[in-house]
Amino acid sequence: MNNYGTLFRISTFGESHGPAIGVVIDGCPAGLVIDEVFIQAELDRRKPGQSKITTQRKEDDTFKILSGVFEGKSTGTPICIVIENQDQRSKDYSHIQNTYRPSHADFTYDAKYGFRDYRGGGRSSARETAARVAAGAIAKLLLKTVGVEIQAFVSQVGELKAAHYTQLDLSKTEDNIVRCPDASTAEKMIALIDQVRLDRDTIGGVVTGVIKNTPVGLGEPVFDKLHAELGKAMLSINAVKGFEYGSGFEGVTLRGSQHNDEFYTEAGKIKTRTNHSGGVQGGISNGEDIYFNVAFKPVATIMQDQPSVDKDGNETTVSGKGRHDPCVVPRAVPIVEAMAALVLADFYLRTRSSRL
Amino acid sequence: MNNYGTLFRISTFGESHGPAIGVVIDGCPAGLVIDEVFIQAELDRRKPGQSKITTQRKEDDTFKILSGVFEGKSTGTPICIVIENQDQRSKDYSHIQNTYRPSHADFTYDAKYGFRDYRGGGRSSARETAARVAAGAIAKLLLKTVGVEIQAFVSQVGELKAAHYTQLDLSKTEDNIVRCPDASTAEKMIALIDQVRLDRDTIGGVVTGVIKNTPVGLGEPVFDKLHAELGKAMLSINAVKGFEYGSGFEGVTLRGSQHNDEFYTEAGKIKTRTNHSGGVQGGISNGEDIYFNVAFKPVATIMQDQPSVDKDGNETTVSGKGRHDPCVVPRAVPIVEAMAALVLADFYLRTRSSRL
Amino acid sequence: MNNYGTLFRISTFGESHGPAIGVVIDGCPAGLVIDEVFIQAELDRRKPGQSKITTQRKEDDTFKILSGVFEGKSTGTPICIVIENQDQRSKDYSHIQNTYRPSHADFTYDAKYGFRDYRGGGRSSARETAARVAAGAIAKLLLKTVGVEIQAFVSQVGELKAAHYTQLDLSKTEDNIVRCPDASTAEKMIALIDQVRLDRDTIGGVVTGVIKNTPVGLGEPVFDKLHAELGKAMLSINAVKGFEYGSGFEGVTLRGSQHNDEFYTEAGKIKTRTNHSGGVQGGISNGEDIYFNVAFKPVATIMQDQPSVDKDGNETTVSGKGRHDPCVVPRAVPIVEAMAALVLADFYLRTRSSRL
Amino acid sequence: MNNYGTLFRISTFGESHGPAIGVVIDGCPAGLVIDEVFIQAELDRRKPGQSKITTQRKEDDTFKILSGVFEGKSTGTPICIVIENQDQRSKDYSHIQNTYRPSHADFTYDAKYGFRDYRGGGRSSARETAARVAAGAIAKLLLKTVGVEIQAFVSQVGELKAAHYTQLDLSKTEDNIVRCPDASTAEKMIALIDQVRLDRDTIGGVVTGVIKNTPVGLGEPVFDKLHAELGKAMLSINAVKGFEYGSGFEGVTLRGSQHNDEFYTEAGKIKTRTNHSGGVQGGISNGEDIYFNVAFKPVATIMQDQPSVDKDGNETTVSGKGRHDPCVVPRAVPIVEAMAALVLADFYLRTRSSRL
Repeated sequence: MNNYGTLFRISTFGESHGPAIGVVIDGCPAGLVIDEVFIQAELDRRKPGQSKITTQRKEDDTFKILSGVFEGKSTGTPICIVIENQDQRSKDYSHIQNTYRPSHADFTYDAKYGFRDYRGGGRSSARETAARVAAGAIAKLLLKTVGVEIQAFVSQVGELKAAHYTQLDLSKTEDNIVRCPDASTAEKMIALIDQVRLDRDTIGGVVTGVIKNTPVGLGEPVFDKLHAELGKAMLSINAVKGFEYGSGFEGVTLRGSQHNDEFYTEAGKIKTRTNHSGGVQGGISNGEDIYFNVAFKPVATIMQDQPSVDKDGNETTVSGKGRHDPCVVPRAVPIVEAMAALVLADFYLRTRSSRL
Repeated sequence: MNNYGTLFRISTFGESHGPAIGVVIDGCPAGLVIDEVFIQAELDRRKPGQSKITTQRKEDDTFKILSGVFEGKSTGTPICIVIENQDQRSKDYSHIQNTYRPSHADFTYDAKYGFRDYRGGGRSSARETAARVAAGAIAKLLLKTVGVEIQAFVSQVGELKAAHYTQLDLSKTEDNIVRCPDASTAEKMIALIDQVRLDRDTIGGVVTGVIKNTPVGLGEPVFDKLHAELGKAMLSINAVKGFEYGSGFEGVTLRGSQHNDEFYTEAGKIKTRTNHSGGVQGGISNGEDIYFNVAFKPVATIMQDQPSVDKDGNETTVSGKGRHDPCVVPRAVPIVEAMAALVLADFYLRTRSSRL
Repeated sequence: MNNYGTLFRISTFGESHGPAIGVVIDGCPAGLVIDEVFIQAELDRRKPGQSKITTQRKEDDTFKILSGVFEGKSTGTPICIVIENQDQRSKDYSHIQNTYRPSHADFTYDAKYGFRDYRGGGRSSARETAARVAAGAIAKLLLKTVGVEIQAFVSQVGELKAAHYTQLDLSKTEDNIVRCPDASTAEKMIALIDQVRLDRDTIGGVVTGVIKNTPVGLGEPVFDKLHAELGKAMLSINAVKGFEYGSGFEGVTLRGSQHNDEFYTEAGKIKTRTNHSGGVQGGISNGEDIYFNVAFKPVATIMQDQPSVDKDGNETTVSGKGRHDPCVVPRAVPIVEAMAALVLADFYLRTRSSRL
Repeated sequence: MNNYGTLFRISTFGESHGPAIGVVIDGCPAGLVIDEVFIQAELDRRKPGQSKITTQRKEDDTFKILSGVFEGKSTGTPICIVIENQDQRSKDYSHIQNTYRPSHADFTYDAKYGFRDYRGGGRSSARETAARVAAGAIAKLLLKTVGVEIQAFVSQVGELKAAHYTQLDLSKTEDNIVRCPDASTAEKMIALIDQVRLDRDTIGGVVTGVIKNTPVGLGEPVFDKLHAELGKAMLSINAVKGFEYGSGFEGVTLRGSQHNDEFYTEAGKIKTRTNHSGGVQGGISNGEDIYFNVAFKPVATIMQDQPSVDKDGNETTVSGKGRHDPCVVPRAVPIVEAMAALVLADFYLRTRSSRL
């Protein structure tokens, strides 16, 4: 449920307006240098209020490590990271105590559990993803020791699409507030999101993830294929509606003779000339770039009145209140990276037992 | 690795050209009537040689239950189902012993494990999915006891797309060999696949799954969201490149005000007027139809010569041999249904502990 | 590693002298009234400094719930409980930074992880069990809703043995500081422990656990037999060397005709006349009392000089310092109860999927 | 439930009188030479009818590998081993269809699952342990590659006890039919078991396990301590009532100053002068011998009439029929070894991710 991973394992906890959220990371190998500045930087990429196109809600998202780190290094014991909730305007949410916001988790949580912590969405709030980003930062530190690089960027907002990642300089992702390294498209995206905000509405988008320098051999067939776990990890992020890797949905229109990735040898290494496989063959990494797209729906909270029902099924109206993101994808970039890192870190450890 | 599920759990085993493939199902509740005719019918929907547009390879795919069933009912102990391999033309495959077929798992298996059972793809062969279908049949039987219905159909082959599922009569899916309930599109699909076959090539497609009558409350946030597990399950099927549910990738272009599903009450039940959510909100089923698309790439085995490398990295040519599917989606329909059933059966049991 | 349970799952974290220890409980059903006074009372039974025969170290062991509880009830989301460490006399332990204390985990932690948090034993300190007691308290609250009662008591210290539990009034366990309901033996135990303390030594003992009113049907053959999980749970407690249930090691001398528990019917319920089975048959509870013994070795920390080696293998002397328990069993009583509760709570939820 | 292990994982299946029993081993590293002669030899040590002091029931226990082995070596994919049931005298058991044998699992299986496969005990039969022995043989082969040696022997039958293992030559274990390397005690044990058999009764015993050359560092605190998993594994074997390791229950009478194992250095290796720790400190192996005792109750099936109840709670008599073991420990020796091997193999793989 609230845990993910086989060897590099995380358990997250916390509600939007409870005392704190956090994560316990179990299975991080001992001896890893835990760079707290880096963890904070990752959290800052996700935190609200970072630009005019994100929610203006304020959360510092400063974290505290309660365990598992000694003299700056992981000890092999569980690392607990806690982030206190600061901006707890509970009264903002009292109006939804008995009302189901459209396309939120209010109804289903009540149906499943009998009641819910309704304050700010409680556990179903995207605030929970801060814990993932903190854990993902540690996974990234682990992966860096073997050269794996994980980068994500906004590749689509509404109908506006960036160029294919192979034609972009991903180091420019952080150069603009929408996190799209395609500068001219980025400008249009920002304008669109700003317009959507003025319309008191929201809009969806796509985040593309790229993983470079993955060692050959990661992934555990047949159910825990590398891309299957990546897909699950991405789909577990709030608001995600779809996942594709390599040629994805477009690939279905190709013929096998077009789609197959021809092998060749370069400098003693076996490589492929094309990469429709997206770096994964038979569920196992082949050393090429792993790339994938993650579709995010428009945020359900809009600043408009919407018809709905209350707990007893009576008709009512939900009014848009609070401070929310007109488009979730700029802040989703570090979350996508974090989940990718958690998947890869786990497979990196799991593959250590593939052979004698 | 080769197991799936938390409470309704399967472990599959077997290689394409070993003595047998099979599955152990652990956690099936006691007292379920095990309808062997139904299991065989499901296997027959997947088996090769069933029509002119599938591989002409012959496998009877008759199964044997070794345990866990007594006097026609599940006993609560593990159910082992074995399917013997009959058509083991091992010599067909000796030519690939030291050669890596493009976009197959030959290279990655060797890289991960040091060597591989190269006969017919070994463990990476889609033959493995027969075990999933057998297990899925039992999951379907369990779900039927609470009214859940799972149906899949071919919704796209190459560029040819069927109408949206809400405009189709899914009971007509089995009326044609491509398993598309949109009769006129089905005809074109069959013609296209036939042409591709004559071209000694392959083509991709999309299978759409629809789950009706899901009880409200299935799914386990935050990582094991219903759609996240569905996604993983689908992505673990051979040749799958993408998964989307509800509004999916197209939904990213909508605004929140268009995308949100308005609640209303009908006959005392809370329902939604639209269903962009795809029956899942916050990772938990809301009682509406769950629907999703699964993208299958064109099959990697083509009847053409392709340049490649051998184990030592030397250039070589892979020649197309054997009997393979020009398009995998007609036979993938029961596999998609089986995986969906395994996901739902597991959540159905897991949700029993949601409340006191 | 640091997690336990299948459906009622805990993940503990924290080192003896880090900022805090704690636990995340995932899978607690929604709607359980979380009695914080009870949780604190359980922690107080375990805490140091509670009597003259325990360590005089002071820890308040006050806890804070960070998540998963709303309006006094569990919400079905993870419950994180944190206990801050207060008495962090780190300097007490600097002398063991490079030295291996006999029969402690110093050497093995270094060997496994490359280094260790040596302050107070770090993760290997029995301080970690406070988190178990907090989680166990919630498990007890869950079990109370179905009438299960868990009681443990000290049944042996050194050679001093209490009467069999069936001859004791377990409600008197808390009447004395050694937690033995056999008053006259308790007195001798206290005197013995006091003598051992004066001798700057330690001594072992046995804790007996008794579980009443267990529903029939708990336990999951073949590996997760009820008593097998109980055994693992008990053996995972610091200093435990053995576990037996029912007739235990003494039962091996009996003949089958003596050992078998004859069935009979009383008030429509099937019962057994004797209970050598210890309430478990074939790994499944039969409704009779579950009872078991847990052997605790003498605490390794003694107030004496002991020869040892340092990290580099050089001979050295370890001097006894600090404030430690001369006998661990009085404080182990609530820990044994907590672990038993965690085992039973998990099986209680797991058994919900045994049947259709 | 019917699976054990984290990385080296087994799933067993099968009933006493169904078509077959077996096991799927998932996670065995690729490249291990699978010595089928050795596997059969291990099965033969467990099989019935091997001597005058075991049941005279005949089962060949010949096995078949269905998957996961290619050209004599493990491929890294699941290894399925099947053993067909041959001696299926179902009629022998019809008399217990509606009757509960004392101290068997008949009542609890019915209570848990609603009905049971009553033939020969079904899933609760010790026949299930043959699958464990087959899997354990492969675990032993894996452990042999790093020098680990696992040996068990009968150390007690009734009141008759062998000398401590350190005073015995364990290579003589197989020299007699009771599998006790203490020749004079073995003779008395055999005589005792023979007498018990003539009395149409049964008797209990103890099996001692010894593991030599365990690498330092195996075991995963805090819940999956090496001895905790060993304990669970042993307690999951049919008829086991207790487990102790190192000083065990006797150790509770010692003082810390007697019990502590002093470290010293020999040939550059850190060792302990005594081994009350039983080779495990803080849940992690320290390189010394791991030794433990496993208590087996007298077999419940006796050749005598016993009062009992039927399904409806009516009084009835159970008559002893069939062919059963007067004492289970001689045949339990390979089972104890197998379970120990499964535990160690799993930890051996898990420890590969302890460090960077």
